[in-house]
Amino acid sequence: MSATTRIGSSFLCRPPQYLQLPEGFGFEHGQAIRPFTICYETFGELNADRSNAILVCHALSASAHAAGKYTPEDEKPGWWDGMIGYGKAFDLERHFVICVNLVGSCWGTTAPASVNPDTGKPYGSQYPWVTITDMVRAQRLVIEHLGIPRLRCVTGGSLGAMQVLMWAALFPDSVESIIAMAGAAAVPVEGVAWHIIGRKIIESDFHFRGGDYYESSEPLRGLQVARMVGHMTYLSQEALERKFGRRRRHGSSQFEIDSYLEYQGTKFSRAYDANSYVRIQAAMDEMDIEEIYGTLEKAFASYRGKALLISFDSDWLFPPAEVEKVDAALRATGVDSTYMEIVTGNGHDAFLIDFHLITPPVKALFARLEASRGR
Amino acid sequence: MSATTRIGSSFLCRPPQYLQLPEGFGFEHGQAIRPFTICYETFGELNADRSNAILVCHALSASAHAAGKYTPEDEKPGWWDGMIGYGKAFDLERHFVICVNLVGSCWGTTAPASVNPDTGKPYGSQYPWVTITDMVRAQRLVIEHLGIPRLRCVTGGSLGAMQVLMWAALFPDSVESIIAMAGAAAVPVEGVAWHIIGRKIIESDFHFRGGDYYESSEPLRGLQVARMVGHMTYLSQEALERKFGRRRRHGSSQFEIDSYLEYQGTKFSRAYDANSYVRIQAAMDEMDIEEIYGTLEKAFASYRGKALLISFDSDWLFPPAEVEKVDAALRATGVDSTYMEIVTGNGHDAFLIDFHLITPPVKALFARLEASRGR
Repeated sequence: MSATTRIGSSFLCRPPQYLQLPEGFGFEHGQAIRPFTICYETFGELNADRSNAILVCHALSASAHAAGKYTPEDEKPGWWDGMIGYGKAFDLERHFVICVNLVGSCWGTTAPASVNPDTGKPYGSQYPWVTITDMVRAQRLVIEHLGIPRLRCVTGGSLGAMQVLMWAALFPDSVESIIAMAGAAAVPVEGVAWHIIGRKIIESDFHFRGGDYYESSEPLRGLQVARMVGHMTYLSQEALERKFGRRRRHGSSQFEIDSYLEYQGTKFSRAYDANSYVRIQAAMDEMDIEEIYGTLEKAFASYRGKALLISFDSDWLFPPAEVEKVDAALRATGVDSTYMEIVTGNGHDAFLIDFHLITPPVKALFARLEASRGR
Repeated sequence: MSATTRIGSSFLCRPPQYLQLPEGFGFEHGQAIRPFTICYETFGELNADRSNAILVCHALSASAHAAGKYTPEDEKPGWWDGMIGYGKAFDLERHFVICVNLVGSCWGTTAPASVNPDTGKPYGSQYPWVTITDMVRAQRLVIEHLGIPRLRCVTGGSLGAMQVLMWAALFPDSVESIIAMAGAAAVPVEGVAWHIIGRKIIESDFHFRGGDYYESSEPLRGLQVARMVGHMTYLSQEALERKFGRRRRHGSSQFEIDSYLEYQGTKFSRAYDANSYVRIQAAMDEMDIEEIYGTLEKAFASYRGKALLISFDSDWLFPPAEVEKVDAALRATGVDSTYMEIVTGNGHDAFLIDFHLITPPVKALFARLEASRGR
């Protein structure tokens, strides 16, 4: 095992790695992109029998950089550093964690903004419409590339949780346990509606040009305002009241919530690509395990691993009842599934905030996995 | 009393009337528009001692056409026809109902789209930023013009309810009773945030040009998508699930909710003006009776009329607790106030839908007004 440099509560991680697919990647809807690159990161060490790998699935706009810092000077560690690390819920003392940048995302994997070698121009509108199945299949290619026969756990929150459930449906034999937080088998209509409105905002931006904007101005304002809509879906009414209420910015008539939304929108539009946002969010809305398999029970019929499903009472994007429905289906097929509704004011974002609340059930699941192995 | 022509459950109403103010209207923020026209409609007959007048305050995008049909061929009657009519909650057998088109609205009152006689061009961006106080003062001018010393009742839902509360604060001696539904003393932060996002969508439309778009293309798409955001705030999660769920349009992959939002947005953008929408919605967000008066108790200290406050359990724009707070303040100042939370899946829009639920408490209040008069 290589030495690990600790930096405060975080650690020094490896740079991103890239799986090159010279023969390309074929999308579920039929098109292909050739060549295709999948960006991923790994944390901790794979053990000798390759049995300690955890796949972490990221949400809408995150990246493969799930934990650690590349250099001690990095301002922030990876997006789930509160959960992944030495002694943390996904414990790198014992586990090897993999996070793969989603198909369609602009964080290293071949994306709409990537240059099409055939034309010398970015794919833009020519980039295929992605599905969650595409994302899971790309993750599986990385897992195979790493020579891992079976994952100890697949986990994630929000869109990450949806990938987790798709793993259990598509590759039931490859997964020993699933941990899904703040996500379900489909986005309920309220979330779909807000997502659709967000995409309309981007697509209505004068600069969007159907997605072929790379050679002119980018649809920055559209992406900013769409992100504001997205941000609202992550916040509970309680969090909005507590953090902002009707307060005005000091010395101005601007509402604090207005200033906050502008800040979030601007920050996001500087870092993320509008086409990637549209593609990945549409994939999230289109996924519907019941629609694909007929029933959730049929979808999970072959899955024999363990399951931990966590909902947050103030999450209105994925209300607890939606998560509980998945648990009920898993149990109905005989899966050892645990469901937990966590009380928190932090809404959908709780999986990125309330580490003290989500760590214990995760550790408990790993203890049970260890125990059943020992037997 | 003039004869009334009944048309189904509705009736034949008078055409709109106009109060001309050649000396202009002075706005709370200091500017004035001269001349200024206020559009209003009246229903039923004013009695001899001018004591049977009810002022109905309309919401965001409605008009003075609160009830009845202008001609038997009209497709639809006025927006609160379910409440105003012969034998209905606001009973025209006994009452004279007035509805005044809001200052800033494009339905007959001088609006941003009206031509400024000094320039020969529409006011556009030069139209003042309106307040709820401006709206209430304009209504009062109409009431004075009609020679009505005291209103039997001031009523409305949503933004209309906010005007009702402002009436009790500004002109406590002119009002015998208030009935406010689905509205409170200020919009809570969740609604403010969605409204702000809606306005940003309009203002980001390439064609908006700061509000001076009348001589070129109108910001139709911005107004459409902003209306979709507004529409979402009127719908409860339950109504969304019941009406649309994740269903697709027959023979297409489009979600039904998508099709519905497009329909609503398009219909609205054909009828309403973007500047009016921005002005009136901003006024709604800016109103904060507590901020103006220090406390709600101080705001209502001089009000001695009766009050009926109605909230809807599934209304997340004005959650019941916000409405109950107003009732508590009114009671604390000694007002005979009744508060009622109505259970309905129809969300904020319930005041425009659940007439069978809101009619009985309204009739009960009028019975009590009659009884206390008799004494």
